[in-house]
Amino acid sequence: MSKLKETRVSTKPVFKGRLLDVRLDEVRLPNGKNTTREYIIHPGAVVMIPVLPDGNIVLIRQYRYPMGREFIELPAGKLDPGESPRETADRELEEEIGYRAGKLTELVEIHPCIGYSNERMWLYLAEELVPTKTNTDHDEFIELLPMPVEKAVDMVWAGKITDVKTIIGILWADRLLR
Amino acid sequence: MSKLKETRVSTKPVFKGRLLDVRLDEVRLPNGKNTTREYIIHPGAVVMIPVLPDGNIVLIRQYRYPMGREFIELPAGKLDPGESPRETADRELEEEIGYRAGKLTELVEIHPCIGYSNERMWLYLAEELVPTKTNTDHDEFIELLPMPVEKAVDMVWAGKITDVKTIIGILWADRLLR
Repeated sequence: MSKLKETRVSTKPVFKGRLLDVRLDEVRLPNGKNTTREYIIHPGAVVMIPVLPDGNIVLIRQYRYPMGREFIELPAGKLDPGESPRETADRELEEEIGYRAGKLTELVEIHPCIGYSNERMWLYLAEELVPTKTNTDHDEFIELLPMPVEKAVDMVWAGKITDVKTIIGILWADRLLR
Repeated sequence: MSKLKETRVSTKPVFKGRLLDVRLDEVRLPNGKNTTREYIIHPGAVVMIPVLPDGNIVLIRQYRYPMGREFIELPAGKLDPGESPRETADRELEEEIGYRAGKLTELVEIHPCIGYSNERMWLYLAEELVPTKTNTDHDEFIELLPMPVEKAVDMVWAGKITDVKTIIGILWADRLLR
Protein backbone atom coordinates (compact mmCIF):
# COMPACT_ATOMS: atom_id res chain seq x y z
CA MET A 1 0.00 0.00 0.00
CA SER A 2 1.14 3.52 -0.74
CA LYS A 3 2.66 5.35 2.21
CA LEU A 4 0.84 8.50 1.10
CA LYS A 5 -2.67 6.99 1.14
CA GLU A 6 -5.50 8.52 3.18
CA THR A 7 -8.21 6.13 4.36
CA ARG A 8 -11.91 6.95 4.74
CA VAL A 9 -13.25 6.78 8.29
CA SER A 10 -16.72 8.18 7.56
CA THR A 11 -18.55 10.16 4.88
CA LYS A 12 -21.45 12.61 5.03
CA PRO A 13 -23.39 14.50 2.32
CA VAL A 14 -23.50 18.18 3.33
CA PHE A 15 -25.14 19.79 0.28
CA LYS A 16 -26.92 18.35 -2.74
CA GLY A 17 -28.09 20.81 -5.37
CA ARG A 18 -28.99 20.64 -9.04
CA LEU A 19 -25.28 20.67 -9.91
CA LEU A 20 -23.14 20.20 -6.80
CA ASP A 21 -22.97 17.15 -4.52
CA VAL A 22 -20.74 18.13 -1.59
CA ARG A 23 -19.29 15.57 0.84
CA LEU A 24 -17.49 15.88 4.15
CA ASP A 25 -15.37 12.85 5.06
CA GLU A 26 -13.30 12.01 8.08
CA VAL A 27 -10.04 10.39 6.95
CA ARG A 28 -7.00 8.76 8.49
CA LEU A 29 -3.66 10.26 7.40
CA PRO A 30 -0.47 8.24 6.77
CA ASN A 31 0.80 9.27 10.25
CA GLY A 32 -2.29 7.76 11.94
CA LYS A 33 -3.93 11.09 12.77
CA ASN A 34 -7.42 11.97 11.55
CA THR A 35 -8.52 15.01 9.56
CA THR A 36 -11.47 16.05 7.39
CA ARG A 37 -11.74 16.29 3.59
CA GLU A 38 -14.42 18.33 1.79
CA TYR A 39 -15.03 17.68 -1.89
CA ILE A 40 -17.45 17.60 -4.81
CA ILE A 41 -18.78 14.41 -6.39
CA HIS A 42 -18.89 15.13 -10.13
CA PRO A 43 -20.32 13.00 -13.00
CA GLY A 44 -17.33 13.73 -15.30
CA ALA A 45 -17.20 15.83 -18.45
CA VAL A 46 -15.98 15.93 -22.03
CA VAL A 47 -14.12 18.64 -23.96
CA MET A 48 -14.14 18.72 -27.74
CA ILE A 49 -11.69 20.23 -30.25
CA PRO A 50 -14.02 20.69 -33.27
CA VAL A 51 -12.07 21.01 -36.55
CA LEU A 52 -13.96 22.63 -39.45
CA PRO A 53 -13.33 21.57 -43.09
CA ASP A 54 -11.29 24.81 -43.58
CA GLY A 55 -8.96 23.80 -40.72
CA ASN A 56 -10.26 26.35 -38.19
CA ILE A 57 -11.13 25.07 -34.72
CA VAL A 58 -14.40 26.13 -33.10
CA LEU A 59 -14.09 28.01 -29.84
CA ILE A 60 -17.10 29.46 -28.02
CA ARG A 61 -17.73 32.46 -25.84
CA GLN A 62 -19.98 32.11 -22.81
CA TYR A 63 -20.70 33.79 -19.50
CA ARG A 64 -19.36 31.98 -16.44
CA TYR A 65 -21.33 33.06 -13.43
CA PRO A 66 -18.88 31.91 -10.71
CA MET A 67 -16.17 34.10 -12.34
CA GLY A 68 -18.57 36.96 -13.19
CA ARG A 69 -17.44 37.34 -16.80
CA GLU A 70 -17.27 35.78 -20.27
CA PHE A 71 -14.66 33.17 -21.24
CA ILE A 72 -13.37 31.82 -24.53
CA GLU A 73 -13.59 28.04 -24.31
CA LEU A 74 -13.72 24.80 -26.20
CA PRO A 75 -17.19 23.22 -26.25
CA ALA A 76 -17.65 20.93 -23.24
CA GLY A 77 -20.32 19.33 -21.13
CA LYS A 78 -21.10 17.02 -18.26
CA LEU A 79 -22.02 13.37 -18.61
CA ASP A 80 -25.72 12.62 -18.17
CA PRO A 81 -26.57 9.55 -16.05
CA GLY A 82 -25.79 6.33 -17.96
CA GLU A 83 -24.01 8.18 -20.76
CA SER A 84 -20.52 7.25 -22.00
CA PRO A 85 -18.01 10.09 -22.60
CA ARG A 86 -18.27 9.48 -26.36
CA GLU A 87 -22.08 9.79 -26.28
CA THR A 88 -21.76 13.02 -24.28
CA ALA A 89 -19.27 14.37 -26.82
CA ASP A 90 -21.70 13.66 -29.68
CA ARG A 91 -24.63 15.23 -27.84
CA GLU A 92 -22.80 18.32 -26.61
CA LEU A 93 -21.22 19.05 -29.99
CA GLU A 94 -24.67 19.21 -31.51
CA GLU A 95 -26.21 21.16 -28.61
CA GLU A 96 -23.42 23.71 -28.26
CA ILE A 97 -22.21 24.32 -31.81
CA GLY A 98 -24.74 22.58 -34.10
CA TYR A 99 -22.47 19.97 -35.70
CA ARG A 100 -22.09 16.20 -35.83
CA ALA A 101 -18.59 14.69 -36.03
CA GLY A 102 -17.91 11.92 -38.57
CA LYS A 103 -14.73 11.14 -36.66
CA LEU A 104 -14.30 11.49 -32.90
CA THR A 105 -10.90 10.56 -31.42
CA GLU A 106 -10.26 10.35 -27.67
CA LEU A 107 -6.93 12.03 -26.88
CA VAL A 108 -6.45 11.99 -23.12
CA GLU A 109 -8.12 12.10 -19.71
CA ILE A 110 -7.33 15.11 -17.51
CA HIS A 111 -8.24 16.21 -13.97
CA PRO A 112 -9.14 19.88 -13.43
CA CYS A 113 -9.69 20.16 -9.73
CA ILE A 114 -8.04 17.34 -7.75
CA GLY A 115 -7.93 19.35 -4.53
CA TYR A 116 -11.69 19.46 -4.07
CA SER A 117 -13.50 17.55 -6.82
CA ASN A 118 -13.40 14.07 -8.33
CA GLU A 119 -14.11 15.49 -11.80
CA ARG A 120 -12.55 13.64 -14.75
CA MET A 121 -12.48 15.19 -18.22
CA TRP A 122 -12.04 13.37 -21.51
CA LEU A 123 -10.60 15.34 -24.41
CA TYR A 124 -11.77 14.53 -27.96
CA LEU A 125 -10.67 15.63 -31.41
CA ALA A 126 -13.86 16.09 -33.47
CA GLU A 127 -13.32 15.93 -37.24
CA GLU A 128 -15.41 15.53 -40.41
CA LEU A 129 -17.97 17.99 -39.02
CA VAL A 130 -21.40 18.20 -40.64
CA PRO A 131 -23.92 20.90 -39.66
CA THR A 132 -27.20 19.55 -38.25
CA LYS A 133 -30.73 20.90 -38.50
CA THR A 134 -30.87 21.18 -34.72
CA ASN A 135 -29.88 24.64 -33.70
CA THR A 136 -27.77 25.24 -30.62
CA ASP A 137 -29.28 24.46 -27.24
CA HIS A 138 -31.98 26.95 -26.22
CA ASP A 139 -30.82 26.86 -22.61
CA GLU A 140 -27.25 27.78 -23.60
CA PHE A 141 -26.17 31.32 -24.42
CA ILE A 142 -23.17 30.78 -26.60
CA GLU A 143 -21.35 32.62 -29.39
CA LEU A 144 -19.23 30.65 -31.85
CA LEU A 145 -15.65 31.80 -32.51
CA PRO A 146 -14.00 29.73 -35.24
CA MET A 147 -10.29 30.55 -35.53
CA PRO A 148 -6.98 29.18 -36.81
CA VAL A 149 -5.11 26.99 -34.31
CA GLU A 150 -2.12 29.37 -34.56
CA LYS A 151 -4.24 32.29 -33.34
CA ALA A 152 -5.64 30.24 -30.43
CA VAL A 153 -2.11 29.20 -29.43
CA ASP A 154 -0.99 32.84 -29.45
CA MET A 155 -3.93 33.71 -27.18
CA VAL A 156 -2.88 30.96 -24.74
CA TRP A 157 0.70 32.24 -24.38
CA ALA A 158 -0.55 35.85 -24.20
CA GLY A 159 -2.79 34.95 -21.24
CA LYS A 160 -5.97 35.78 -23.17
CA ILE A 161 -7.32 32.24 -23.05
CA THR A 162 -7.14 31.17 -19.41
CA ASP A 163 -9.64 28.32 -18.98
CA VAL A 164 -7.51 25.25 -18.29
CA LYS A 165 -9.41 22.65 -20.36
CA THR A 166 -9.31 25.06 -23.31
CA ILE A 167 -5.57 25.77 -22.95
CA ILE A 168 -4.81 22.04 -22.89
CA GLY A 169 -7.13 21.29 -25.83
CA ILE A 170 -5.56 24.06 -27.94
CA LEU A 171 -2.02 22.84 -27.21
CA TRP A 172 -3.08 19.30 -28.18
CA ALA A 173 -4.60 20.71 -31.40
CA ASP A 174 -1.35 22.56 -32.10
CA ARG A 175 0.62 19.33 -31.66
CA LEU A 176 -1.72 17.24 -33.85
CA LEU A 177 -2.88 19.61 -36.59
CA ARG A 178 -0.14 22.13 -37.25
CA MET B 1 -23.47 45.38 -21.47
CA SER B 2 -22.72 41.88 -22.69
CA LYS B 3 -25.70 40.06 -24.14
CA LEU B 4 -24.44 36.88 -22.44
CA LYS B 5 -24.36 38.31 -18.90
CA GLU B 6 -26.23 36.67 -16.01
CA THR B 7 -27.36 38.96 -13.20
CA ARG B 8 -27.54 38.05 -9.51
CA VAL B 9 -31.05 38.10 -8.01
CA SER B 10 -30.13 36.64 -4.61
CA THR B 11 -27.33 34.68 -2.94
CA LYS B 12 -27.29 32.17 -0.10
CA PRO B 13 -24.45 30.30 1.67
CA VAL B 14 -25.37 26.60 1.74
CA PHE B 15 -22.22 25.02 3.20
CA LYS B 16 -19.16 26.49 4.89
CA GLY B 17 -16.43 24.06 5.87
CA ARG B 18 -12.72 24.31 6.62
CA LEU B 19 -12.02 24.38 2.87
CA LEU B 20 -15.23 24.82 0.89
CA ASP B 21 -17.57 27.81 0.89
CA VAL B 22 -20.58 26.81 -1.24
CA ARG B 23 -23.13 29.34 -2.52
CA LEU B 24 -26.51 29.00 -4.18
CA ASP B 25 -27.58 32.05 -6.19
CA GLU B 26 -30.72 32.86 -8.10
CA VAL B 27 -29.76 34.59 -11.36
CA ARG B 28 -31.47 36.25 -14.30
CA LEU B 29 -30.49 34.87 -17.70
CA PRO B 30 -30.05 36.99 -20.87
CA ASN B 31 -33.56 35.90 -22.01
CA GLY B 32 -35.15 37.30 -18.82
CA LYS B 33 -35.82 33.90 -17.23
CA ASN B 34 -34.44 32.98 -13.82
CA THR B 35 -32.34 29.95 -12.87
CA THR B 36 -30.00 28.90 -10.05
CA ARG B 37 -26.20 28.73 -9.95
CA GLU B 38 -24.23 26.68 -7.40
CA TYR B 39 -20.54 27.42 -6.95
CA ILE B 40 -17.52 27.50 -4.66
CA ILE B 41 -15.96 30.70 -3.31
CA HIS B 42 -12.19 30.07 -3.38
CA PRO B 43 -9.33 32.23 -2.03
CA GLY B 44 -7.15 31.64 -5.12
CA ALA B 45 -3.97 29.61 -5.45
CA VAL B 46 -0.44 29.64 -6.82
CA VAL B 47 1.46 27.02 -8.82
CA MET B 48 5.25 27.03 -8.98
CA ILE B 49 7.69 25.64 -11.56
CA PRO B 50 10.80 25.20 -9.39
CA VAL B 51 14.01 25.00 -11.49
CA LEU B 52 17.03 23.42 -9.76
CA PRO B 53 20.60 24.58 -10.52
CA ASP B 54 21.08 21.41 -12.65
CA GLY B 55 18.10 22.40 -14.84
CA ASN B 56 15.69 19.76 -13.51
CA ILE B 57 12.24 20.92 -12.44
CA VAL B 58 10.78 19.74 -9.14
CA LEU B 59 7.56 17.78 -9.36
CA ILE B 60 5.92 16.22 -6.32
CA ARG B 61 3.84 13.16 -5.67
CA GLN B 62 0.90 13.39 -3.27
CA TYR B 63 -2.34 11.61 -2.44
CA ARG B 64 -5.49 13.38 -3.60
CA TYR B 65 -8.39 12.17 -1.52
CA PRO B 66 -11.24 13.32 -3.83
CA MET B 67 -9.68 11.24 -6.65
CA GLY B 68 -8.65 8.34 -4.36
CA ARG B 69 -5.09 8.08 -5.66
CA GLU B 70 -1.67 9.73 -5.95
CA PHE B 71 -0.87 12.41 -8.53
CA ILE B 72 2.32 13.87 -9.93
CA GLU B 73 2.01 17.64 -9.60
CA LEU B 74 3.84 20.93 -9.49
CA PRO B 75 4.00 22.43 -5.98
CA ALA B 76 0.96 24.62 -5.33
CA GLY B 77 -1.07 26.10 -2.54
CA LYS B 78 -3.96 28.33 -1.57
CA LEU B 79 -3.64 31.97 -0.57
CA ASP B 80 -3.93 32.61 3.15
CA PRO B 81 -6.09 35.61 4.17
CA GLY B 82 -4.30 38.88 3.39
CA GLU B 83 -1.53 37.15 1.43
CA SER B 84 -0.47 38.19 -2.08
CA PRO B 85 0.09 35.44 -4.68
CA ARG B 86 3.84 36.14 -4.57
CA GLU B 87 3.93 35.73 -0.77
CA THR B 88 2.00 32.46 -1.09
CA ALA B 89 4.45 31.23 -3.72
CA ASP B 90 7.41 31.97 -1.40
CA ARG B 91 5.73 30.28 1.57
CA GLU B 92 4.48 27.20 -0.28
CA LEU B 93 7.83 26.59 -2.02
CA GLU B 94 9.50 26.38 1.36
CA GLU B 95 6.70 24.33 2.97
CA GLU B 96 6.30 21.84 0.13
CA ILE B 97 9.80 21.34 -1.24
CA GLY B 98 12.16 23.09 1.24
CA TYR B 99 13.60 25.78 -1.05
CA ARG B 100 13.62 29.56 -1.34
CA ALA B 101 13.63 31.15 -4.79
CA GLY B 102 16.08 34.01 -5.50
CA LYS B 103 14.00 34.82 -8.59
CA LEU B 104 10.23 34.39 -8.86
CA THR B 105 8.58 35.35 -12.17
CA GLU B 106 4.80 35.49 -12.64
CA LEU B 107 3.91 33.88 -15.96
CA VAL B 108 0.14 33.82 -16.28
CA GLU B 109 -3.20 33.59 -14.47
CA ILE B 110 -5.34 30.55 -15.23
CA HIS B 111 -8.81 29.34 -14.20
CA PRO B 112 -9.23 25.64 -13.37
CA CYS B 113 -12.89 25.25 -12.67
CA ILE B 114 -15.01 28.06 -14.17
CA GLY B 115 -18.19 25.98 -14.20
CA TYR B 116 -18.48 25.77 -10.42
CA SER B 117 -15.69 27.69 -8.69
CA ASN B 118 -14.27 31.22 -8.76
CA GLU B 119 -10.74 29.87 -8.25
CA ARG B 120 -7.92 31.83 -9.89
CA MET B 121 -4.41 30.36 -10.13
CA TRP B 122 -1.18 32.28 -10.66
CA LEU B 123 1.68 30.40 -12.29
CA TYR B 124 5.26 31.28 -11.25
CA LEU B 125 8.68 30.29 -12.53
CA ALA B 126 10.90 29.80 -9.44
CA GLU B 127 14.63 30.07 -10.15
CA GLU B 128 17.89 30.51 -8.18
CA LEU B 129 16.67 27.95 -5.64
CA VAL B 130 18.45 27.70 -2.29
CA PRO B 131 17.64 24.92 0.22
CA THR B 132 16.36 26.16 3.59
CA LYS B 133 16.76 24.76 7.08
CA THR B 134 13.00 24.41 7.38
CA ASN B 135 12.03 20.94 6.36
CA THR B 136 8.87 20.29 4.37
CA ASP B 137 5.52 20.92 6.04
CA HIS B 138 4.70 18.34 8.69
CA ASP B 139 1.04 18.36 7.68
CA GLU B 140 1.88 17.56 4.06
CA PHE B 141 2.75 14.08 2.86
CA ILE B 142 4.79 14.74 -0.21
CA GLU B 143 7.54 12.99 -2.19
CA LEU B 144 9.86 15.08 -4.38
CA LEU B 145 10.40 14.03 -8.01
CA PRO B 146 12.99 16.21 -9.73
CA MET B 147 13.14 15.49 -13.47
CA PRO B 148 14.24 16.97 -16.80
CA VAL B 149 11.60 19.15 -18.51
CA GLU B 150 11.78 16.85 -21.55
CA LYS B 151 10.73 13.85 -19.46
CA ALA B 152 7.84 15.78 -17.87
CA VAL B 153 6.65 16.89 -21.33
CA ASP B 154 6.72 13.28 -22.54
CA MET B 155 4.60 12.29 -19.52
CA VAL B 156 2.05 15.00 -20.40
CA TRP B 157 1.57 13.81 -24.00
CA ALA B 158 1.53 10.16 -22.83
CA GLY B 159 -1.35 10.94 -20.45
CA LYS B 160 0.75 10.06 -17.37
CA ILE B 161 0.59 13.57 -15.92
CA THR B 162 -3.08 14.54 -15.92
CA ASP B 163 -3.46 17.32 -13.33
CA VAL B 164 -4.31 20.43 -15.35
CA LYS B 165 -2.22 23.03 -13.49
CA THR B 166 0.77 20.69 -13.78
CA ILE B 167 0.25 20.07 -17.50
CA ILE B 168 0.07 23.82 -18.17
CA GLY B 169 3.10 24.58 -15.97
CA ILE B 170 5.19 21.91 -17.69
CA LEU B 171 4.28 23.19 -21.16
CA TRP B 172 5.21 26.74 -20.06
CA ALA B 173 8.52 25.37 -18.72
CA ASP B 174 9.12 23.63 -22.04
CA ARG B 175 8.51 26.88 -23.90
CA LEU B 176 10.76 28.98 -21.61
CA LEU B 177 13.60 26.65 -20.65
CA ARG B 178 14.19 24.26 -23.51
